[in-house]
Amino acid sequence: MTPLPALAWPTLGYRGLVHSGPTVRVRLDLAYDGTQFSGWAPQPGLRTVAGVLCEALATVLRTDLVRVVVAGRTDAGVHARGQVAHLDVPAPVLDALVARDDGAVGPAVLVRKLARLLPDDVVVHDAQVAPPGFDARFSPVSRRYAYRVCDTRRDPLTRAFVLHHRGLLDVDAMAEATGPLLGLHDFAAYAKPRPEATTIRTLLRFDWHRPDAGPDAGLVVADVEADAFCHCMVRSLVGACLSVGESRRDPTWPAQVLASGQRTCTVAPAHGLTLEHVTYPPDADLAARATQARARRDVPSD
Amino acid sequence: MTPLPALAWPTLGYRGLVHSGPTVRVRLDLAYDGTQFSGWAPQPGLRTVAGVLCEALATVLRTDLVRVVVAGRTDAGVHARGQVAHLDVPAPVLDALVARDDGAVGPAVLVRKLARLLPDDVVVHDAQVAPPGFDARFSPVSRRYAYRVCDTRRDPLTRAFVLHHRGLLDVDAMAEATGPLLGLHDFAAYAKPRPEATTIRTLLRFDWHRPDAGPDAGLVVADVEADAFCHCMVRSLVGACLSVGESRRDPTWPAQVLASGQRTCTVAPAHGLTLEHVTYPPDADLAARATQARARRDVPSD
Repeated sequence: MTPLPALAWPTLGYRGLVHSGPTVRVRLDLAYDGTQFSGWAPQPGLRTVAGVLCEALATVLRTDLVRVVVAGRTDAGVHARGQVAHLDVPAPVLDALVARDDGAVGPAVLVRKLARLLPDDVVVHDAQVAPPGFDARFSPVSRRYAYRVCDTRRDPLTRAFVLHHRGLLDVDAMAEATGPLLGLHDFAAYAKPRPEATTIRTLLRFDWHRPDAGPDAGLVVADVEADAFCHCMVRSLVGACLSVGESRRDPTWPAQVLASGQRTCTVAPAHGLTLEHVTYPPDADLAARATQARARRDVPSD
Repeated sequence: MTPLPALAWPTLGYRGLVHSGPTVRVRLDLAYDGTQFSGWAPQPGLRTVAGVLCEALATVLRTDLVRVVVAGRTDAGVHARGQVAHLDVPAPVLDALVARDDGAVGPAVLVRKLARLLPDDVVVHDAQVAPPGFDARFSPVSRRYAYRVCDTRRDPLTRAFVLHHRGLLDVDAMAEATGPLLGLHDFAAYAKPRPEATTIRTLLRFDWHRPDAGPDAGLVVADVEADAFCHCMVRSLVGACLSVGESRRDPTWPAQVLASGQRTCTVAPAHGLTLEHVTYPPDADLAARATQARARRDVPSD
C-alpha cells in the first residue's frame, strides 16, 4: 500500500455533492473489542473496524470521500484500547458539520455524532485537529501491545480479551527469554512474510510479569513495545515465550529462533492481544519522523 | 418454591437406570457471564445457567435426576464470579464417575469433566463434598454483589459487565445516601413484589467508591452485601443512588423511599451487576443457619 495521495478536489462525493478546497487532518483516538471484527482493514463482505468506522463517518460527514489511516492495523480478533487514526476532511465538510451543531468546537463534534452511529464494540474517544506533519501511521515512535493470559481460575467475564492457559506458567523463565530479543533485529523468524516488507524492527520492551495489583492482578501479562511490528510479530513472540513458560523449551530458545531467521513458533491466539498505546514524538518532530518511517518501510506493515 | 424434598430412591433416571441408596451432597463453586443467559432459573425454551449446567451434569453423571440448588438466583443478564450451588448425587452414581476416571479424588473430577461440556460463558471452579448441614441456598450468612459503572472513557472490552453512564457521577453524594439504608429494614420499596415473600432484610454493606487501584480502577463501584436480597433489590438500590449521583435527587432521597415503602426507583440495568461472593458460617453452624433462614423465608427470594 502506498502512502495516501493528497486528495484531489473537486471530487464527486456522497449524495453527489462536490467538494473543493483544502482539507483538515483530524486525529481520532479510538478503542474496540476485536471479537466480532475481521480485523482493521476493510475487506469486501467482512465486518472490519475501518469498514464500520468509515460507514459511520460517511453518514456524519455526508461524504464518502474520507479514508482513514491507522497506527496499528490489527488482525482479526485483536483488540485496541489506544488506537489512533487520521482522516483528511475537506474544510467545507467540517465547517458544515460544525455549523449543523450548536456549540460544537471543531472536530470534537465527531465524538458525539459517531457515538450515536457506531455499534457498542467501537468507541471513538477523541477527535481533534492534528498538529502539522501528523501521520497516524508513519509518525509514531512506538506502539505498545499487551498480551494477557490467565493460568489460574478462568474468569468468564474477561474471556474476550484474556487467553486461558491450562497449567501454571513459569513467568520467570518467560521474562528471562525476552532479554536477548530487545533492540534492533531482523524479526523475520517472528513475522508472517509480506512481499517487500522489511522485518527489521527495534523491540523496545518485552516484559512478562504477573501483576499483584492493578487491572491485570492475577494474570500473566506481556507488555511489548516496538517502533513498529511486522505482521503477527507480537503473537509469534508470545507463542515462543509460552513454550518456555510451559517448560517445553529452554529460555534461550526464543533468541535461537530469532537468530535462525526461520519461522518455527506457534502464533498465539488473537483474542489475548490488545493494542494499548501509540506514542508520537513532540509536535515539532512529527513530519521528520513520518518521512524517516516512510523511507524505512517501502511496504510498511505495522 | 418449597425446599427440595429428600430424593426418593429408587427412581427411574437417565437411560432408564435405577438408582437407590444414599446421596452425597456436592458443593459447586462457579462463575458465569450472564449476557447470553435468561438468568439462573430453568425456563422452558430459554437458555438459563441452571439449564445449561444441569444438561452437562446429566451427561457427566449419566443421570438426569440431579437438581441444582443455588445461593443467588441471578436475573437475566446478571453475572456471577462467586456463585455457589449444591446437588445431591446418588452415592453409586458418584462412585461410578470416580471409577471411570483414573486418579480422580471424589467429586473434584466433575470440574474437569464439566469443563469439556460447558460453553465458555460458564465455569465450574470447584466441586467438593459439602460439609454436613450445608445448603447452598439457606446456609449463607451473606451474599455480596458488585455493581460497576463507568462514567468516563468507555472501554468496549469491559462493556459486558460495566454500565456506561454519560456524565460524571457525584460519588460522595451516592456514598452519603447509603448510610441510612444499612441494617434491618423492610425493603419493600426496593423489591419487585413476590407473593408471600418477605421483604425484610439486613443490609450489611453498601459502599460506593471510585477505586484508584485494583481491577476496578477508574470505575464507580458499589459493594452491596446483605443476609439475602429481595427480587431486583440491588438494582433498585443502585437505581436510586444513580439519581443521587446525577444530582437529580438529594442524598436523603433513597432513605425516604425506603421509609415510604412505595416503589419509585428505576431498576438499574442488569449487566452492571455481578454476584461476587457468598459467605457461609463455620461448618458447625451450617445446619442451624439453614433452619433459621428457612423459617424466616416461607417463600424465599434470595
